[in-house]
Amino acid sequence: MGTDHAHRHYGDEMLSVEEAQEYILRAMNVLESEEKPLSEAIGQVLAQDLVSKINIPPLTNSAMDGYAVRHEDITEASEHTPIYLQVIDEIAAGSLPLKQVTPGTASRIMTGAPIPNGADTVIPFEDTDEPQRTERRESVMVPGRVAIKYLSPKGSSVRPFGQDIKQGQLVYPAGTVIRSVDLGGLASIGLGQVPVVRRPIVSILSTGDELVLPGEKLDDGKIYDANGVGLIAAVRASGGIPNFVGIARDNVDDLNDKLDECLRGDLLITSAGVSKGDFDVVKDVLSARGEMGFWSVRMRPGKPLAFGMLYDDSGKAIPHLGLPGNPVSALVAFEIFARPSIRKMLGIPNVFRNTVDAVLQDSIENNDGRRVYARVIIRYQDGGFIASTTGNQGSNLLSSMLKSNGLAICPENQKFIRAGDQVQVHVTDWDRVEYVS
Amino acid sequence: MGTDHAHRHYGDEMLSVEEAQEYILRAMNVLESEEKPLSEAIGQVLAQDLVSKINIPPLTNSAMDGYAVRHEDITEASEHTPIYLQVIDEIAAGSLPLKQVTPGTASRIMTGAPIPNGADTVIPFEDTDEPQRTERRESVMVPGRVAIKYLSPKGSSVRPFGQDIKQGQLVYPAGTVIRSVDLGGLASIGLGQVPVVRRPIVSILSTGDELVLPGEKLDDGKIYDANGVGLIAAVRASGGIPNFVGIARDNVDDLNDKLDECLRGDLLITSAGVSKGDFDVVKDVLSARGEMGFWSVRMRPGKPLAFGMLYDDSGKAIPHLGLPGNPVSALVAFEIFARPSIRKMLGIPNVFRNTVDAVLQDSIENNDGRRVYARVIIRYQDGGFIASTTGNQGSNLLSSMLKSNGLAICPENQKFIRAGDQVQVHVTDWDRVEYVS
Repeated sequence: MGTDHAHRHYGDEMLSVEEAQEYILRAMNVLESEEKPLSEAIGQVLAQDLVSKINIPPLTNSAMDGYAVRHEDITEASEHTPIYLQVIDEIAAGSLPLKQVTPGTASRIMTGAPIPNGADTVIPFEDTDEPQRTERRESVMVPGRVAIKYLSPKGSSVRPFGQDIKQGQLVYPAGTVIRSVDLGGLASIGLGQVPVVRRPIVSILSTGDELVLPGEKLDDGKIYDANGVGLIAAVRASGGIPNFVGIARDNVDDLNDKLDECLRGDLLITSAGVSKGDFDVVKDVLSARGEMGFWSVRMRPGKPLAFGMLYDDSGKAIPHLGLPGNPVSALVAFEIFARPSIRKMLGIPNVFRNTVDAVLQDSIENNDGRRVYARVIIRYQDGGFIASTTGNQGSNLLSSMLKSNGLAICPENQKFIRAGDQVQVHVTDWDRVEYVS
Repeated sequence: MGTDHAHRHYGDEMLSVEEAQEYILRAMNVLESEEKPLSEAIGQVLAQDLVSKINIPPLTNSAMDGYAVRHEDITEASEHTPIYLQVIDEIAAGSLPLKQVTPGTASRIMTGAPIPNGADTVIPFEDTDEPQRTERRESVMVPGRVAIKYLSPKGSSVRPFGQDIKQGQLVYPAGTVIRSVDLGGLASIGLGQVPVVRRPIVSILSTGDELVLPGEKLDDGKIYDANGVGLIAAVRASGGIPNFVGIARDNVDDLNDKLDECLRGDLLITSAGVSKGDFDVVKDVLSARGEMGFWSVRMRPGKPLAFGMLYDDSGKAIPHLGLPGNPVSALVAFEIFARPSIRKMLGIPNVFRNTVDAVLQDSIENNDGRRVYARVIIRYQDGGFIASTTGNQGSNLLSSMLKSNGLAICPENQKFIRAGDQVQVHVTDWDRVEYVS
């Protein structure tokens, strides 16, 4: 293959993946915080410790619908010798008890309603004669009498205040990523909004005279721009706010105009124009407006990469990541370099994706000492993961991304991974993992 | 515990989880389709087969920056006896070749540019004298001469048209869930929008006199409504569009007013008011406006459940799922019944969550023959999953949801799962799985 053949000329200058990541991440800062309505804060990171200002539950209350009683009054209750109590009050959830439970009395009480003074135990309806009276269409109104037919231990069906969350309790420390399941808990302590690190605005710019926007007419020699929409989706999935600026043509004026539109963001991601062999116009413009490094990274796909700062006239700078033009290379390089950058800006503690161990079903070859990120479909079967490559791994083959949900790693120093061997896989889309039974 | 004690009275009338799911899902229909801009269609389901109208790449093109040649002209090339060719054209990506490559000639060509007629092989710059000429600041302009110094096999660095995707090829069948990673591929075949099943609008209504919206002042005896925001997040995470109608008070007029606002949606989810012991006003209103079943489901938490149809004056009906008021029960019942309902309306083929096998670190008890869904934190360690319960599993303890990312299942007929035993777990949040190394 011509591709591999050529690298012997450049192999020595390559950066490792980790060197490139370290250099790039050093330029990323955690963004400032903002107040966000609770339901819009999912995926964002708490900027401050969250301490509950209230007890949950706020008052000691009933876990059942039943009768609040003094346990000492009913220790002799049984089905055949029920204890009769005078019902003095009825307490709904959300209302406060009006009366104290004194010897020989009880208050009818609903789930969640505060336990009245004097009572220490709740006897559920089912353990009283209320079901029978209801069946006979007798009144259960207050005042009246209730027969306790089964004994419960003292304190039964009583939820002490603060049992769930205590006033002053640290509910979540700063740095916690808010997930969907947390919202109920945060609402229950009364939070309408939360202080979170704001999301980065990520400008996305495709470059190339040959590109046409999807949905438009394709003239001979042109291709559709796959990177614009692909990167919009990838930025959103990483937690950033995408700002697609469009396609810049390979000339100085158009590039400069489009770059001006990118300066309002927190990060600029361009695709194409950064390879050693590309026309120099993109590289010239980028170099003139900032400090760009044009790198070769010891990985496949995604070897050519550019990184630096983009300046405006006032000297304000934003980091700029230049991805390869090839759509597969661009998406893999995004995964390895841009996603961690966005996560660092979001304040997420663990910026890198973890790996799971999988059994490889076919083989991965590594013929030039670069780390291979092979697109795989990962399945869960018999208690473990199985990975199959998505066919031809040429970096021009976008179809190899279709249906893929992971990147299997073949290390730099390993010539191949054989079918049946263990392989480490970044699962990039858990929702697409198939479960085979 | 009083809670367990009481169930012996009702145990026989309970529905199994599967019976309740089957009954509920029978009422859900796949919604109609809509055209959606590509970048907004993630998570939605293709309503038609997607067939590519074009070849990818559209034209046979160069995989490298180099020189397009006739292989038979250069079979004798070597570093010491280079072959000299006349350069007749320069082809950029996005432009068309102007000249045919004839014996003894070559065209300078960029990655992605169409291969000119006559040529069959591309020799990369690095295998010609161009790098040396560039170093000596000599012109590489056309017309000129190039020396081919290294031979590549015939066809090298040439990408045939349709290699990636062929015209007429089925790219995705109807029923495919569109994921972030698919967008680049769909854009590359020129799609600006896609036909997808529309998302269901899910109305959410909290009921109860005791509820206060988060952010507002909490009077004695009241509690914050955790279910509103919790269900907004859960609906969104399931792929629905939440429409939070607010809190209905426990009176006929307010309930009817709020229910009217819910009829525009595709599904209504209420919380509270459905337990056997609850005040009858919610049940009375719901029964008057539709056909409601008030069920006990053989699960913990989440036993009380209501399901039926809500009608407006014209006879239009939408399905209505009544969840328990307790926030943990509501969220677990949502997971088991509402999430599959929303996924069915979205057209997603596999509506239920799968399970992974995990080693349980503590124990789960099941003392009344119901299926237990224990909130767990799931970790990945040494190639497998480990699950730990989030402490006290009382259904009133919202703190047991904090940090949880899975539901471990203890079957109805199993009294306990011991520490060290295998347990099946629904992973509810893959992003929160910890990786221990």
